[in-house]
Amino acid sequence: MSQDSKPCFDKKNLALRLSSAGIFALLFFTLLWFGKESWAKLTYMGILAIVAFVGVREATMIGRKMGHFPSTFTGTLLAWGFIVHCYLWGLERSEAFPLWLLLAGSGAVIHFVALFSRRNLDNALASQGITWLAGLYLGIGLGFQQKLFMFNETTLSNTGARLLLALFLIVWLGDAGAYFVGKGFGKHKLAPKVSPKKSWEGAVGNIIGNIAGATIIKLFVCTDWSPVDVFAIAFLLGVVGILGDLVESTWKRSAGVKDSYFGISIPGHGGILDRVDSLVFAAPALYAYIHFIHGLN
Amino acid sequence: MSQDSKPCFDKKNLALRLSSAGIFALLFFTLLWFGKESWAKLTYMGILAIVAFVGVREATMIGRKMGHFPSTFTGTLLAWGFIVHCYLWGLERSEAFPLWLLLAGSGAVIHFVALFSRRNLDNALASQGITWLAGLYLGIGLGFQQKLFMFNETTLSNTGARLLLALFLIVWLGDAGAYFVGKGFGKHKLAPKVSPKKSWEGAVGNIIGNIAGATIIKLFVCTDWSPVDVFAIAFLLGVVGILGDLVESTWKRSAGVKDSYFGISIPGHGGILDRVDSLVFAAPALYAYIHFIHGLN
Repeated sequence: MSQDSKPCFDKKNLALRLSSAGIFALLFFTLLWFGKESWAKLTYMGILAIVAFVGVREATMIGRKMGHFPSTFTGTLLAWGFIVHCYLWGLERSEAFPLWLLLAGSGAVIHFVALFSRRNLDNALASQGITWLAGLYLGIGLGFQQKLFMFNETTLSNTGARLLLALFLIVWLGDAGAYFVGKGFGKHKLAPKVSPKKSWEGAVGNIIGNIAGATIIKLFVCTDWSPVDVFAIAFLLGVVGILGDLVESTWKRSAGVKDSYFGISIPGHGGILDRVDSLVFAAPALYAYIHFIHGLN
Repeated sequence: MSQDSKPCFDKKNLALRLSSAGIFALLFFTLLWFGKESWAKLTYMGILAIVAFVGVREATMIGRKMGHFPSTFTGTLLAWGFIVHCYLWGLERSEAFPLWLLLAGSGAVIHFVALFSRRNLDNALASQGITWLAGLYLGIGLGFQQKLFMFNETTLSNTGARLLLALFLIVWLGDAGAYFVGKGFGKHKLAPKVSPKKSWEGAVGNIIGNIAGATIIKLFVCTDWSPVDVFAIAFLLGVVGILGDLVESTWKRSAGVKDSYFGISIPGHGGILDRVDSLVFAAPALYAYIHFIHGLN
C-alpha cells in the first residue's frame, strides 16, 4: 500500500514491462482476429471483468487512504453488471438484464450491505458514494469496450474488432503524442493544481497523436471512414482522453498517491487506473459517435 | 445550515404542518384522480423534479458538512435525467433518452465539470462519489414513482394512479405502525449504532402497518390483487422501507446532523430526505414485483 511498494519504471524493469506488454498485445490481437467468434467475445468480457475488479479495488483503495470505507465487493458487482449488460446488448438481448434492474439492484446492494459493515458507518455517505463511482467508472468505461467489440457486419467498419483497434490506437498514439511533445516543448501549464507536469503543448501533441492514429486506422483498418469521421473521432477521443486523464489525477492527488498501483497489476505496468484513464471516457464517446452520427446500434 | 435553524416539531408548528400536508394531499389526490390525463403525468413529473432538486441538495449539504464538495447542479441533472427517462419509458419511448446515454453523459458531466471547480479538487474522489450517489438515489427513487404512475389500463390494477396510492399508503401505514408499536413496546434495539431509537418491536409494527395498508388497498383500490400479492407487496415494501430508513440515518449520523433539513422544505415538515427515505427503495421494489411476478412493463 505504501509508496515504496510501487513498481519502479526504470531500465531494470523494462524487460518485464515489455514482455508483459507483448503477451497482452498477442492476446489482444488474437481476440481481435477472431473477433466474430463468440468465444473471442466471451474471453474479452472475462478480461474486462478482471480489469474491472482490479480497477474498482484501486479506486476504493484510494478512498480508504482518505479514511473512507467504500466496498470493493459491491462496486465490482456493479461494474460486472454493466459489462454483462453491454454483452447482452450486443447480442440484442439487453432486456434479459436491463439497466434499470442493474441500477435499482445496485442501489439496494450498495446501501443495504453497508448497513451490516461496522466500519462503513463512519463516513457512510462518502463511502457509499465512492462505491457507486468506482463501479460506474469501471463498468461504463470498460462495458462500452465490450459493446464496441460486439458490433458485427452492419457497422461503420464491418466488425467490432476494428472499432476496438481504432479506440486503442487513437487513444494510445494520443498519449504518446502528449508525452513526447509535452516533454520536448511543454511550457504553458494545462492544469497546474491537478497535474503539474501537463502542458498545453502536450495537449496539442495529444490531438496530433489522435489524428495520426485515426488516419492510420482509416488507411489500413476502417477504410470506410470519411475524412470528417477521421477528424471528428480523433478530436472527440482526444478531448475526453485528456479530461479523463485529469479526472484520475484529481483522485490520486486528493489522496496523496502518485500512481494508482495497490499491489495488483500487469507486471511492470503499475496501476490499472493509470492504464485505462484515457480509455474510460473514450469508449462511450466512440459508441455515441457511431450511434448518433451513423445511426448504428 | 446550523442545527438551530431546523423547524421545531412541537404543537406550535402543528397547524402549519397539517395545513401544508393538507394542501399536498389535495394536490396529490387531484393528480391521482386525473391520472389517465397526460397533464397529470407531466405535473407529477414537475413535482418530482422539485423534490429531486431539494433532496439532492440535502444529500450534497450533508456531504459539505463533512468537508466534501459534491455538486448539487450535476447531481440534480442526473436525477432529472432518470425521472425524464422513466416518463419516456412509460410512454414506450425510452429509446429517445436511453439509460446508457444518461449514465455515460452524467459521467462526463460530473467528472469533467468538477475539474473546473477549484474546491472540488480537494477530496475529489469522495466529492464526485457523493454527487453520483445523490443523483442516483433521488433519480431512481423518484423516477420509479413516475414509472408506476405511467401505467395505463393494462396493469395489475388498471391505472398507475392506483399503484401510486398503494405505494404511499402501504409505506406510510408502515411508518405509522413502526412509530406507535416502537413507542409503546420497543425494548430490543434494531441497530443501536445507526439509529438508537429504532427497535425490533417497531420493525414488527412496521410490517403490521404495511399489511394493514396492503389489505385496505386490496379491499378498496386494487381489488384484483390476490392474497399472495397483498402479503408479498406488504413484506417487500416493509423490508426495503425499514432498511432505506436506516440507510438515510447512517448518512445523517456520519455527518452529525439529526434531520436532513437544510433551509428548503414543505413548511413544517423538515427535510425532504427524511420524508422520502422509506419510499426511495419501495418504488423500484414495487415496480420490480409487478414486472417480474405479473409480467407487466
